[in-house]
Amino acid sequence: MNQTTQEKLELVRNIEKEAAIYAHAAAVLSYDQETICPIKGMEEQGEVTAFMENQAFKLEKDEKFIEAAEYLYEHKDELEEFDRAMAEQLHRNYMKRKNITAEKQMEISLTYNKAFVDWSNARNASDFSMFKESLTKVRDINKEIVALRTDRTTKTVYDELLDDYEAGISSEKIDECFEKCKKRLIPLLKKIMNSKKQIRRDFMSIEVTDEQQAKMARWLLETMNFDLERGAFTTSEHPFTSGLGKDDTRVTTHYYPTNFAGSIYSIVHEGGHALFDSLQPRENYEHFITGGKTMGMHESVSRMYENRIGRSKEFVHLIYPKVCEVFPQVMKGVSENELYEALNIAEPSLIRTEADELTYTFHIIIRYEIEKALLDGDLAIDDVPKMWNEKYKEYLGIEPDCDRDGVLQDVHWTFGFGYFPAYAIGNMYNAIYYNRMKNEIDINSLVAKGDFATINNWMKENVFKKADRLTPSEWLMDITGKDLSADEFLDYLEAKYTELYEL
Amino acid sequence: MNQTTQEKLELVRNIEKEAAIYAHAAAVLSYDQETICPIKGMEEQGEVTAFMENQAFKLEKDEKFIEAAEYLYEHKDELEEFDRAMAEQLHRNYMKRKNITAEKQMEISLTYNKAFVDWSNARNASDFSMFKESLTKVRDINKEIVALRTDRTTKTVYDELLDDYEAGISSEKIDECFEKCKKRLIPLLKKIMNSKKQIRRDFMSIEVTDEQQAKMARWLLETMNFDLERGAFTTSEHPFTSGLGKDDTRVTTHYYPTNFAGSIYSIVHEGGHALFDSLQPRENYEHFITGGKTMGMHESVSRMYENRIGRSKEFVHLIYPKVCEVFPQVMKGVSENELYEALNIAEPSLIRTEADELTYTFHIIIRYEIEKALLDGDLAIDDVPKMWNEKYKEYLGIEPDCDRDGVLQDVHWTFGFGYFPAYAIGNMYNAIYYNRMKNEIDINSLVAKGDFATINNWMKENVFKKADRLTPSEWLMDITGKDLSADEFLDYLEAKYTELYEL
Repeated sequence: MNQTTQEKLELVRNIEKEAAIYAHAAAVLSYDQETICPIKGMEEQGEVTAFMENQAFKLEKDEKFIEAAEYLYEHKDELEEFDRAMAEQLHRNYMKRKNITAEKQMEISLTYNKAFVDWSNARNASDFSMFKESLTKVRDINKEIVALRTDRTTKTVYDELLDDYEAGISSEKIDECFEKCKKRLIPLLKKIMNSKKQIRRDFMSIEVTDEQQAKMARWLLETMNFDLERGAFTTSEHPFTSGLGKDDTRVTTHYYPTNFAGSIYSIVHEGGHALFDSLQPRENYEHFITGGKTMGMHESVSRMYENRIGRSKEFVHLIYPKVCEVFPQVMKGVSENELYEALNIAEPSLIRTEADELTYTFHIIIRYEIEKALLDGDLAIDDVPKMWNEKYKEYLGIEPDCDRDGVLQDVHWTFGFGYFPAYAIGNMYNAIYYNRMKNEIDINSLVAKGDFATINNWMKENVFKKADRLTPSEWLMDITGKDLSADEFLDYLEAKYTELYEL
Repeated sequence: MNQTTQEKLELVRNIEKEAAIYAHAAAVLSYDQETICPIKGMEEQGEVTAFMENQAFKLEKDEKFIEAAEYLYEHKDELEEFDRAMAEQLHRNYMKRKNITAEKQMEISLTYNKAFVDWSNARNASDFSMFKESLTKVRDINKEIVALRTDRTTKTVYDELLDDYEAGISSEKIDECFEKCKKRLIPLLKKIMNSKKQIRRDFMSIEVTDEQQAKMARWLLETMNFDLERGAFTTSEHPFTSGLGKDDTRVTTHYYPTNFAGSIYSIVHEGGHALFDSLQPRENYEHFITGGKTMGMHESVSRMYENRIGRSKEFVHLIYPKVCEVFPQVMKGVSENELYEALNIAEPSLIRTEADELTYTFHIIIRYEIEKALLDGDLAIDDVPKMWNEKYKEYLGIEPDCDRDGVLQDVHWTFGFGYFPAYAIGNMYNAIYYNRMKNEIDINSLVAKGDFATINNWMKENVFKKADRLTPSEWLMDITGKDLSADEFLDYLEAKYTELYEL
């Protein structure tokens, strides 16, 4: 490395170090806000958080910093791997927002904040018309953001937004995957609905206490080999995971009085995210590239732990004695197989976050198709609820009877578009790398005996290690030698439900 | 106000606003660290907190800021009351640290951090010799800090340190109060020890669950009329209160499996601090003077709620049914009067934080006398444990058999001296203003019926309102027309224990 590169690298690293401190503070403030901050203290705390984020934003908008970071990107071949990844990420961020002024950034934030408030009120009133104006503004400002990116290489507005969350993915690729899903899952679901199989579910809604659920949650995190000396868990309205620092990853869960399985799968899902964050290379922190993981990568891991592992016979075998011990009032007279079956019931439902592994994908497809029509097509905002309801009817055979259970159920449209497909793509990624994993380690017997150390280690070496240094397609190729496709995910679902429902 | 003053005021307010944002972030980070941050994440989080504190420090060390703030102080007669208080506080802070460079400040922080680690290890090993070196450094750097204050008006080094925590208090005044305490409390304690009165205490150590204690804690905060929409509570190793913002005051408690009364009085004590913070004038925030409350003022309030109210017959009458409901295994066959008596047992003990209302003062006196000898006298560090043990023998008739239960029990010497007397002075302040309060509102019957709204309102109008704008002696004079003295506190203790122990 020549002296100039060395100097630029040092300048960039010093600024990134300071930006990381502001980001850490903002993350703790947000975490606190979601978990314990009193309702009336939130406004002030939100201002403090925004200040911290703005400080980080300003540091990276500094001309000297940009000049140095762009120099590094142009000379990236001189850099070692982690620094090269940093230079690439900084360049990517720079290109995405180089024409976004501080004022525009503020306008964007205010639009999203207003949309959140309007959405909350609309959802409470179950009235889409109260959200219409804000949704229009969010769509328009997203179109504007894309228009400001004068050097973009993506084909459509929506492709550009997709790229923000899942670098390099195109709507063409997603269309291909989702068409396959529809083709194979609609008939599968029909067969299930016509099956004679009876699955017992009476015990699933028996009342349980928060203390019981907390006990189970702790045991599950310990069983998953998540290091509670390097992490913590508590509750929040909506479960999430926050990687606050190299030795500090927090998960939250939510306790449901009449759905003991809800908090179990929240914890296993968030536990997966937390393992990904906490078992990444420590060099990621030193080189400020921890943000390189995409949404789809992250969801692939969390959903692998939640579904592929968490809803398997072997996992149910592992947790069955503990579930009986912690929830005796629920499990009285319930066999291991009855628990397994009840945890895997597949049926059409209206709420994405409560959907089973099979029908989940339809919730994503529906929103994806609407988003595309809103950004690249000519769907009018007014027609969104109608399209929503028609698609539920078409794919799942059911229709919401109010906006709250339909188009208003999720928060994501208050801050943009293009985020949702990652949920479904994650399932496809993990189906592909799971097939490699099971050839190399005896995953079923490891799960049955609770040896998560071995499983996590395989994930660490093969899945987590390079996630921050590669694009999603490079990463999947590196792990499996394959391109993204829905085939292996669909093979898995067909095999699983054919057996379960005796089709 | 002339134009220059207006401009200076604006400059100062803008900087103070930014400093307050950093202080808010640092407070949330510290709160998080004490309550949920995982053990291995603490180091990094500590660095983030230190960065935020340092940003605030640097803002107030800026030359333009100092020039403007000093100008305001010189022209304070032009300012309205709250701004004048701000100017006075800024001037006081400026004078205290005007010769402390950023490097010296860093050296001080490092000394205290090292002392904390050494003290923790020494305490775990119960070996004072492991703390000796750090204690020496803390003493020396405190002497150095005082020597750097070239314009100080206090008589001795220790008086200057006292003034840091309790502005305007002198060791001469404290000596006078403490001598009175010794003169009246030593004979009182002897009489109690010789009393034939039998107080039942078998039920006080029956095992209880965390959930029971949490339920009681929430009920107590609600009963004290603390607004949980403007605050929150959780647990920590050592209970504390943190005023994070104008609508966000947090308290913590600690659950003890075999001491149900411990968490009750932690909550009532911290609840008192929290009422003080959350019921202060909102103008205090707008004028950045919330730090004007001294340690002694704060302890006067928390200890009034904890002891004066919390250990009264009327308060026990109020909580008795709830205690019976929440802790049935403890309260079976225990009468209201038995509970009252058990909560008021007075006897010599070794640990300050567990001491009763009467003997508590001796723990303070002992540390105070040692601190004075260390800073203004010629007590050698090596002789501290010996002096400690001798004084316990002299005042309380008992001696610790290990350093952990003696000289190493409290953390405070890891960050300086002069803090302790405020604990005892707080009791004296509240004894004086309590006597005025009881003449104006029927405190006993208000407590008995749980009307804390009226009590808190009296406190708000008379005690909380001007605390940040006055020195402690001005404040006490404003509330009561009196100077600090130990008399009313001692009168109260004598009356209470004479009745309880039938002396």
